[in-house]
Amino acid sequence: MESTLNYNKAKDWIIEENEFDHSNLGKCEAIMCLGNGYLGIRSSAEESYTGETRGYYIAGTFNKLDQYEVSELPNIADIINIELELNENSFSLEKGKIKEYSKSLNLKTGELHRHVLWESMQGELFLLDFYRTVSLKDMHLVAQKLVIVPVNCDAKIKITSGINGRMTNSGSQHMTDGEKRFYDRKYMQLVQATSESGIDIIHNTTLSFKLNQKKTELNSNIAIDRRRIFCAYDAVLPKNNSLTIEKISNVYTSRDIQNQGVPLKTIQERSLEALKASAMAGYDQIASVSAKEWEDKVWDTNPIIIDSEDEYEQLAVRFAQYHLTVMTPIHDKRMGIGAKGLSGEGYKGHTFWDTEIFILPYFIFTEPEIAKNLLIYRYLTLEGAHKKANSNNYKGAQFPWESAWLDDGEVTPVWGPVDIVTGLPTKIWSGFIEQHVTADIAYAVWQYYMITDDQEFMDCYGYELIFDTAKFWSSRLEYSQEDKLYHINDVVGPDEYKEHVDDNAFTNYLAYWNIKKAIEYYGQLQEERTRFKDLFTRLDLNNTYTEWIDRIDKVYLPTPGKQDFIIAQDKSYLTLKDIDLTKYKRQKQVGTIFNDYNLEQVNNIQVSKQADVMILFFLMEDLFSHDVKKANWNYYEPRTLHDSSLSLSTHCVLANDMCDYELAYELFKRACSIDLGPNMKSSNEGIHSASMGGIWQSVVYGFGGVRMMNGQLRIEPKLPESWNSLQFSIKWKGQSLQVFVDKRKLLIKNCTATKKVEVYVNNKAYSIDTELKMKL
Amino acid sequence: MESTLNYNKAKDWIIEENEFDHSNLGKCEAIMCLGNGYLGIRSSAEESYTGETRGYYIAGTFNKLDQYEVSELPNIADIINIELELNENSFSLEKGKIKEYSKSLNLKTGELHRHVLWESMQGELFLLDFYRTVSLKDMHLVAQKLVIVPVNCDAKIKITSGINGRMTNSGSQHMTDGEKRFYDRKYMQLVQATSESGIDIIHNTTLSFKLNQKKTELNSNIAIDRRRIFCAYDAVLPKNNSLTIEKISNVYTSRDIQNQGVPLKTIQERSLEALKASAMAGYDQIASVSAKEWEDKVWDTNPIIIDSEDEYEQLAVRFAQYHLTVMTPIHDKRMGIGAKGLSGEGYKGHTFWDTEIFILPYFIFTEPEIAKNLLIYRYLTLEGAHKKANSNNYKGAQFPWESAWLDDGEVTPVWGPVDIVTGLPTKIWSGFIEQHVTADIAYAVWQYYMITDDQEFMDCYGYELIFDTAKFWSSRLEYSQEDKLYHINDVVGPDEYKEHVDDNAFTNYLAYWNIKKAIEYYGQLQEERTRFKDLFTRLDLNNTYTEWIDRIDKVYLPTPGKQDFIIAQDKSYLTLKDIDLTKYKRQKQVGTIFNDYNLEQVNNIQVSKQADVMILFFLMEDLFSHDVKKANWNYYEPRTLHDSSLSLSTHCVLANDMCDYELAYELFKRACSIDLGPNMKSSNEGIHSASMGGIWQSVVYGFGGVRMMNGQLRIEPKLPESWNSLQFSIKWKGQSLQVFVDKRKLLIKNCTATKKVEVYVNNKAYSIDTELKMKL
Repeated sequence: MESTLNYNKAKDWIIEENEFDHSNLGKCEAIMCLGNGYLGIRSSAEESYTGETRGYYIAGTFNKLDQYEVSELPNIADIINIELELNENSFSLEKGKIKEYSKSLNLKTGELHRHVLWESMQGELFLLDFYRTVSLKDMHLVAQKLVIVPVNCDAKIKITSGINGRMTNSGSQHMTDGEKRFYDRKYMQLVQATSESGIDIIHNTTLSFKLNQKKTELNSNIAIDRRRIFCAYDAVLPKNNSLTIEKISNVYTSRDIQNQGVPLKTIQERSLEALKASAMAGYDQIASVSAKEWEDKVWDTNPIIIDSEDEYEQLAVRFAQYHLTVMTPIHDKRMGIGAKGLSGEGYKGHTFWDTEIFILPYFIFTEPEIAKNLLIYRYLTLEGAHKKANSNNYKGAQFPWESAWLDDGEVTPVWGPVDIVTGLPTKIWSGFIEQHVTADIAYAVWQYYMITDDQEFMDCYGYELIFDTAKFWSSRLEYSQEDKLYHINDVVGPDEYKEHVDDNAFTNYLAYWNIKKAIEYYGQLQEERTRFKDLFTRLDLNNTYTEWIDRIDKVYLPTPGKQDFIIAQDKSYLTLKDIDLTKYKRQKQVGTIFNDYNLEQVNNIQVSKQADVMILFFLMEDLFSHDVKKANWNYYEPRTLHDSSLSLSTHCVLANDMCDYELAYELFKRACSIDLGPNMKSSNEGIHSASMGGIWQSVVYGFGGVRMMNGQLRIEPKLPESWNSLQFSIKWKGQSLQVFVDKRKLLIKNCTATKKVEVYVNNKAYSIDTELKMKL
Repeated sequence: MESTLNYNKAKDWIIEENEFDHSNLGKCEAIMCLGNGYLGIRSSAEESYTGETRGYYIAGTFNKLDQYEVSELPNIADIINIELELNENSFSLEKGKIKEYSKSLNLKTGELHRHVLWESMQGELFLLDFYRTVSLKDMHLVAQKLVIVPVNCDAKIKITSGINGRMTNSGSQHMTDGEKRFYDRKYMQLVQATSESGIDIIHNTTLSFKLNQKKTELNSNIAIDRRRIFCAYDAVLPKNNSLTIEKISNVYTSRDIQNQGVPLKTIQERSLEALKASAMAGYDQIASVSAKEWEDKVWDTNPIIIDSEDEYEQLAVRFAQYHLTVMTPIHDKRMGIGAKGLSGEGYKGHTFWDTEIFILPYFIFTEPEIAKNLLIYRYLTLEGAHKKANSNNYKGAQFPWESAWLDDGEVTPVWGPVDIVTGLPTKIWSGFIEQHVTADIAYAVWQYYMITDDQEFMDCYGYELIFDTAKFWSSRLEYSQEDKLYHINDVVGPDEYKEHVDDNAFTNYLAYWNIKKAIEYYGQLQEERTRFKDLFTRLDLNNTYTEWIDRIDKVYLPTPGKQDFIIAQDKSYLTLKDIDLTKYKRQKQVGTIFNDYNLEQVNNIQVSKQADVMILFFLMEDLFSHDVKKANWNYYEPRTLHDSSLSLSTHCVLANDMCDYELAYELFKRACSIDLGPNMKSSNEGIHSASMGGIWQSVVYGFGGVRMMNGQLRIEPKLPESWNSLQFSIKWKGQSLQVFVDKRKLLIKNCTATKKVEVYVNNKAYSIDTELKMKL
């Protein structure tokens, strides 16, 4: 498990591996994943290895294998594979000797580069440089370049490559065999179709060659086989000459917005024409156009500059922004962000509350258009949410714990890892009873509205989402004759180590907030009844409103203990057994408690997987006094194992609030290391999407002190000791603000300056025309 | 493509590889395949390698993936995989140094053994011996043993193994994810089900350990994951001590005869109990019981002894007998033999005419019960054969070119490899127009009857098969106004390089023979009309008979040319272009002509893939004079590329008949080498089932001179020069004959001796009570 990653040469932009480690292939495959929100490709090597996980995913192309499985994002045909034979030795880093090696992702340009000086078993030396770019400009385009130089020998080189449709999701095949064809013995096309959802996926690829930079043709042997089409080329290369191989590929689907209703044949033809044009342009041009797009659309638009002794921190923030870009389908409102983005099979490409609570703030504050689209995705899934509510005998919209298609509702799998006691798989209860996601979405709508003032969004989507979710919560409440209050029993809260709990504080407070907000908006819209007539009718709002009013003050909300100020995470938490958690706290691996206990046993211990009461404090910052928060922090932090990637950043931000700056900084470092850190296994299934938002939140919310409080912008920076300065940009109600902070001053520039912006610093309001400069 | 196989140490029984060759894994996986007719397992290594093809198949468990594919034999979950970590190095022959290596299959015992002395990258030496047996006694049982000795160091060993249901057929997944469970943290069970045919496949496995031969328990970590269940064990092993790992597995299906109607739960319980008992017995006992079964049921029952200078020939015959045993589902009449047996995905487990023409003679002459069952399989597929005839507007039974389930009729895939000219896949016409299989089956019924005298079989199945196939042929005939004769146009004959030909000699003669034979049997059964009343009615025999009589003498049969004696393979063959075939003839690889021509072009050249007119001579030996045969031999042999495994043995037997002894011997050698020879790629998709029968035919028909001629037994041995003697056993009409021949004498013993046997030697009949001895 020793890390082979190196950030010393980082210069803030480069993630680099300097040693080939066959037992940890998944790490770089995931963290160096390339993509553009439309497609994502794990950064497996060109040549294949046992234990690798080649993954290539297109956002929103879900397929349901059979009645026993749920919709998942299929692993489409592999185009990355290029097998080389160098003087009859098949090239593999497992064989011969590696004299030089580096594999690096340049976050700035989005280019992957692998450099190898390889000595074959016969002592022949070959210099190999592999380059790869997924275009950020043309979302369908993937380009590879490979330069081979035989250093101390002449070389016969055999290159075999094509399109391999034999890929599966851990053995599950989502595709038909498909149509295969060569055009002009040069262009290869494979058309796959998903087996149940019937999406056509059209792959094109072509290889071209240069000898010492001059175009050349190689002898080729074409082949069509089951589920694959490929070609073998033969080259002869004198010592010290260079062979350049370019492989240009593209992919289109019948689900692409521009292909709706277009006949498959036409998509095939157009995509082939597009490929020909891209191949003509060539690798270098594709890569530089894409790099320019990264510069323009990401780095220049939303720069975050940390001046710190440790370059790793700057790198981590860019790493987060890189992946936030790669994972987010900004081209299409009909799809969400997967919990592993497009970087692996983990969580099957499904969207969780991770998007709304952990990722969305980044987009709301930097690219509100994208944030809006992600919320519209939820709006478009209302049919599924109604279905889910209905099947549980609730009203309104109950959003699924895991979301895929617009209309299929709940897609959480039912069975998980082994129960060490029974020997059976563990039942996953989240899909049934982890219900807070419905309030989380309502919360995100409100947050988006408060930060952007986007009234049009509210009129078209926002109000309806808040009403429909409130309607669900109202129907979800359970009246108790005993205390004459409404309870929410038998749920899983954010802390997934507690199943079947009653009155989870987070869930109850957010449900309450959701209904409360609906009541508030109902009141506001009353004045515009005619404009919202249709909405009022559709949701039967008048009757629903009566129910809300009747119930709102009878919702049970757990209050702080009179003496210790502790808020019970749920009804029974405080009565559970306390055990010594030292062994499990801050382990390199998550979930180590399950080596000793099964989930049923963990259910009965005062231990939390992740922030639960803390995230309530985080979202509802002014709900409790500082003393209450501090008491609960002291109680729950030691009991929280951070066995979820959704935990560290929240605790980091809160630690800052609690003035525990050292811990805040430590938690930030750990949050940065969820994927980037030395644990070589934790990213195998894909990067942790929410954690990317979490890194941003740690920096901008935590140390930058930015917060939306009740519709107001607050900025109260608290830089870590080792930081000299921090600079970032946010958007607030249409104005673009540049924030700079160092040890001595805070500088806020309104770059848009079309209207004044009110900012609270240390509880004082400042109005910014163009700039605010203040000493700290 | 250099061979790493070694037969020098063969001692007639051992196939051995002495060098690990990562680029040619498929060779040993296939030719060293283990099995028992119920199941077959490719002999992949315990640890995994890129480019390997792990295959595990159960006879008759077909599944059809989707509407675009045909039924095929699914690759079930892998149980062979055992991953080892030796002092934190994952064990792989690709890494470190191989100091000693051999991988061998002992045909006598059916045991696979791999011996490795491996030096890790740190210079640590480990001695590893892997043993593997598929029980011939208990057809559900698979046993593995592995002994590890660290030679120059202490060792920490991690063993990871279980059941892996992620296997596919080249990317096609036929199984549901399935139920997984541990029992007592010790026994693993995975229940897969085929997705369309709904067959439950129940796997059980368990591992146990010995330290220096004494039972020991190891720390274990159990895991259930998508499509797999496995366990990791940790051992500490001092220098020069030995750790023995035994993995015992079994597999049952809901299609097993004894499981018909048994609830799945019960099968699960019973199979688990069976596993516990097998694990208790342990590897050594399982292996020795299985070896005893090989001895009793194969080697002692049907010994073939070649006394030759070259041990390879003896080995090849045993290799053939070994695979004929491993591939044949003798336990169940509802399934046939796959063209690759149970040793690979090739031809999808489908049954071809290979069975009747190339394999069946072995069983008819040695194990007639098995031969009968294989013919009953065809009888049970009559529903599908009717369906096929019907869909083509023919009558009677048209057997499919490729056969799987009893009732699905034709399962030949429609698309094959790439057409180098169009860039599209080639259309496979066999399923549509390669029709001779229907006559081949009728021929096999007759052959079986003639050799066994099994009247009961004829009464129950045989007559019906011959009538129903004749009925097809009669309806298939096409009347020509021109010559007032019936033709069979637009077919593929045995030579698959000629598509859409008219009047293929082989097809026409066999169709004619089939109808003729039906007429003959109709006449015989007339006397017993009442007994066969049902059959006569069902097949509408009276009317059909009238049609037969009307047409039989008007069937067009190509006759030898008046001057050159040449029989046209088909109507146009003799008019096609002649090209220089030297380049393609006797190449190491088959199909090299397609590097220069596409199939359409090959269609227009006088070149044959395989025996065509020759196989007509082979089946209908007395139809033509020796002079005609000789003339055609001289014409067609040079034009036949033997690009099919169905060709060499036929030409070998005929070469002997043509007194071309040198060529006969050479062809025999080549026939032996189809799988066993130095071509390291040709067996990748599985061994060539028909070729196994072909090797036997070359020896017993060719050199042993055994033939059934019009119901008579003929034995006219012609030993190759380098052979001192040949001994084999055959059954003839219930009598077991032992035949011994050397340079000077022929000895035939009737071991059963319950009745006289008439044998023709050199055109003279001899009647054998107990023994015939004659000088040669």
